[in-house]
Amino acid sequence: MRFELTILGSGSALPTSNRNTTAQVLNVLERFFLIDCGEGTQHQLRKFKVSFNHINHILISHLHGDHFFGLFGLISSMALVGRDRALNIFGPPELKHLLQTVLKPQFEKTPFPINFHPLNQQSPDVIYEDKVLTVTAFPLKHTVPVWGFLFKEKPRLRKINPVKISEYNISIPEIQYIKNGAHIERNNQIISNEELTHDPLPPRSYAFMTDTLFSRQHRDLLMKTDLIYHEATFLHENISLARKTTHTTARQAGIFARETQIKHLLTGHFSPRYKNESLFETESREEFKYATAARDGDIIIWPYNQQKAFQLIRGNDQWELLINPFQK
Amino acid sequence: MRFELTILGSGSALPTSNRNTTAQVLNVLERFFLIDCGEGTQHQLRKFKVSFNHINHILISHLHGDHFFGLFGLISSMALVGRDRALNIFGPPELKHLLQTVLKPQFEKTPFPINFHPLNQQSPDVIYEDKVLTVTAFPLKHTVPVWGFLFKEKPRLRKINPVKISEYNISIPEIQYIKNGAHIERNNQIISNEELTHDPLPPRSYAFMTDTLFSRQHRDLLMKTDLIYHEATFLHENISLARKTTHTTARQAGIFARETQIKHLLTGHFSPRYKNESLFETESREEFKYATAARDGDIIIWPYNQQKAFQLIRGNDQWELLINPFQK
Repeated sequence: MRFELTILGSGSALPTSNRNTTAQVLNVLERFFLIDCGEGTQHQLRKFKVSFNHINHILISHLHGDHFFGLFGLISSMALVGRDRALNIFGPPELKHLLQTVLKPQFEKTPFPINFHPLNQQSPDVIYEDKVLTVTAFPLKHTVPVWGFLFKEKPRLRKINPVKISEYNISIPEIQYIKNGAHIERNNQIISNEELTHDPLPPRSYAFMTDTLFSRQHRDLLMKTDLIYHEATFLHENISLARKTTHTTARQAGIFARETQIKHLLTGHFSPRYKNESLFETESREEFKYATAARDGDIIIWPYNQQKAFQLIRGNDQWELLINPFQK
Repeated sequence: MRFELTILGSGSALPTSNRNTTAQVLNVLERFFLIDCGEGTQHQLRKFKVSFNHINHILISHLHGDHFFGLFGLISSMALVGRDRALNIFGPPELKHLLQTVLKPQFEKTPFPINFHPLNQQSPDVIYEDKVLTVTAFPLKHTVPVWGFLFKEKPRLRKINPVKISEYNISIPEIQYIKNGAHIERNNQIISNEELTHDPLPPRSYAFMTDTLFSRQHRDLLMKTDLIYHEATFLHENISLARKTTHTTARQAGIFARETQIKHLLTGHFSPRYKNESLFETESREEFKYATAARDGDIIIWPYNQQKAFQLIRGNDQWELLINPFQK
């Protein structure tokens, strides 16, 4: 029942020796979503041991190169290793034509189907849904159209109290109804669902927001999300540059996290002009204590039971993330 | 007076942890030519400490992704670091449209001029020429149009014997004529150029040939080239696969080198199906003893004086390349 994020690239437009351009993989119960795909993403997948065969869904936030130039090579490599399963790509409408144009000299037709899902809505919209999960795209503010993505487990079924099953001689078909919230009748009396069940564990959630100007537009949508990855391209001393280039500062990301009452903030998309990533972490924490500056290779593991701790794996180290107690 | 090759990627279509897709930089007297540009080339340039600011000419052999998918990111990064000098790109005609399409969402116009030079000739043709160098493109045989590239220093001027300058009281304007091969007249006698000068050092040369089916088509053009980088995607046990996919085996590359009487053969574009690169080296050497299987990061240095040795720098090691004595 994994819910797990791997950071493949936490840098901004110019890759550096320890920070690649944007890409990350979210694993929700063995559904692997690749979110953005900067140049070298296939190399990072290999380095951080995420098989690209698992990826059936790729979400591209916008058409700046540091968010999608790795897509061409990844698709080519998928073809080379004999993929035949369909690949779903969600992205700005023009991406479809770009892909066709670039891949054409190589493949008249890729050996596996590519289902392209254009993002063009101007308000939050569910772009993916299955039994356990929804993904909502929501527009951000940048120099070109950009979308953020919210991943949310569906509310889980109520947990039936096993003692009650024998006490009321509950049948198997009844169990399913009860898990969905139904009351039952015994001897002309209503046995309430509350008596039969416990509250389920709360669903887990994650949101990805880069590139964007600082904006409160989607605060309600994102309220109490578990974890948000928010860009923090600049430190606040460069706020005018952030505004000019429609990016966010580490301080603003902290403000957003605090106001959205999330559990933990992960920042990234750092400009290479700053020597030390801890500057970003420190600045965000002045606004919201529960913040981490991402590094390439970071793995964040959501607990199945939300009372338990979030884990961060960084290289050979592993520790618990400090969680906003408001949300505990 | 450097003539120096840096291998940025010696792998074939699927990048591996130690072998990236095709790219290399040839430095001829501080003219830096980037030859092919697979995904991750800008990362390799950084890793192997070649500044991409030096690169004014990029040559793309063909439109398979492992030879050009890094071009989009490299151009974007050049723009980000404030390049304003023109960039010259030589490649198949369709590349121009591909570049425009992919870069359009990012730049309405790149901040520096891109001069695109289409390769479309069906016979060898000089595509670049300056005071010291010519570059000739020649068509190879693959599933799509491919060109190889021959870099050749121009013949050097004859070396004047300083003793003769005072002996015949040679003027400065005369020196230039003599270096170009002229005789002079003194007291109604002709003093032959042979008496006044020594032979110049022979010009240096390099050829790049990947991807291609084994072919003798350009043997005359390439005869006695100093060094050829020739693809050897397969071992000869897979000759039928090499033919089917229009590639060359390590044995065939060795045969080509022997028949072309070059000084040294460098092979690359190795399929990752083989565990051990020394297999390629051993197989080529059965045909032509003066062969090396390339590794990413290899640097080959031509001597200015061709009597001296070629150097290979590999990691912290450096050694002399074994040279075909026929050519010494």
